[in-house]
Amino acid sequence: MEAAAQPPPTTLAPEAPTGFPDSDSIPVGHRLFSRIRLATPADVSHIHKMIHQMAIFKRLADQCIATESSLSSTLFNHPPFQSFTVFLLEVSPNPLPKITSPNFTPIERIIQLDLPIIDPEAELFKSGTNDVVVAGHVLFFPIYPTFLAKPGLYVEDLFVRECYRRKGMGKMLLSAVAAQAVKMGYGRVQSLVLDWNVNAIKFYKEMGVEILTGWSICRLTGEALEAYRDAI
Amino acid sequence: MEAAAQPPPTTLAPEAPTGFPDSDSIPVGHRLFSRIRLATPADVSHIHKMIHQMAIFKRLADQCIATESSLSSTLFNHPPFQSFTVFLLEVSPNPLPKITSPNFTPIERIIQLDLPIIDPEAELFKSGTNDVVVAGHVLFFPIYPTFLAKPGLYVEDLFVRECYRRKGMGKMLLSAVAAQAVKMGYGRVQSLVLDWNVNAIKFYKEMGVEILTGWSICRLTGEALEAYRDAI
Repeated sequence: MEAAAQPPPTTLAPEAPTGFPDSDSIPVGHRLFSRIRLATPADVSHIHKMIHQMAIFKRLADQCIATESSLSSTLFNHPPFQSFTVFLLEVSPNPLPKITSPNFTPIERIIQLDLPIIDPEAELFKSGTNDVVVAGHVLFFPIYPTFLAKPGLYVEDLFVRECYRRKGMGKMLLSAVAAQAVKMGYGRVQSLVLDWNVNAIKFYKEMGVEILTGWSICRLTGEALEAYRDAI
Repeated sequence: MEAAAQPPPTTLAPEAPTGFPDSDSIPVGHRLFSRIRLATPADVSHIHKMIHQMAIFKRLADQCIATESSLSSTLFNHPPFQSFTVFLLEVSPNPLPKITSPNFTPIERIIQLDLPIIDPEAELFKSGTNDVVVAGHVLFFPIYPTFLAKPGLYVEDLFVRECYRRKGMGKMLLSAVAAQAVKMGYGRVQSLVLDWNVNAIKFYKEMGVEILTGWSICRLTGEALEAYRDAI
């Protein structure tokens, strides 16, 4: 039966489970095996593409000058969680190949779908040698809210590719960061949201996140920043 | 003459210069010798007091639960600039004793005043064994603006004690952070400002800082954060 239902490469329909945790308890249907793992330098091309998709979504594409090369040279220079860190969300219609990481135990979930997801960019976001694709990411790093006098984690990017939205994957990514913050004894997870992005605000509120207005961003960049080169 | 003008301990009036850089070129009068240096664990009690003064100024005192102990255990655990970092601003009516630091060359300035500054808390903010007092601080740490694909520095606190305001010391502290960002090849210095704090907004604009509206802060903290302990 599974062979007959074999999807074309760009359709993420499920095959039979093969020992994936809890897979026996979920009815065979349109299942999507998902996993959050730490990103590595090998993932930079996918991260780069998602950052640009996110910039377009945020209507800030003109401000996005990230290249694969600039990302490669600035990310992954410190141990995870102590500095800039990326969690990658991978999905597959089939059980994901086992991986291990000394720093973070991957989080695995089986998502039950009403319909299989058609991913028009599956080839572009292929991860590894089988039918695993990258569906999203979250980039975060430590911050220090002085009033708490203990660190927090700041979420710079939280992104799920369009065809994977409204399936709980953003919640899965943010939950992973929140759980990591609690695990490290940190006191806060913080981010910024564009006021027009009502879906994101709704998402955050459903996650227990408080939305604080009355603040503006102060940003010194480009030539205005360069002017301070010899200021001291 | 200087001996006759010797101020009481809480009055920061100048004495004669003794070889301080450039001191010969500034007319003897109400001079204040100032210096920015890296804070150390020994400075925590001063930092703690300033954080609480800042919380009161920001009308957020109810949110400030920082203690000397919690600051001590969470700051200074990493090399400066790679994580949470504090620059301390010290002032004295007399040339400051020389100090050296392998990580940061202290920045020294002589501030010419119309009148000597009366510091009602000079004893409380005494730094070291002579007439040096702590006048302010800036706490900052690396951030990663993905659209730039290179790090920036985030200014969490920028504080000058009340009696030292409007003397260019805030500018001196922020300039030190901006110059450090440029030196490290970073692309941005960022902060947040309360919309009602018109003096701070004016200060930032004069420093070349862009003020961006249309964003809100998303904050997950306290019990709402703890709820994610077992979320994954």
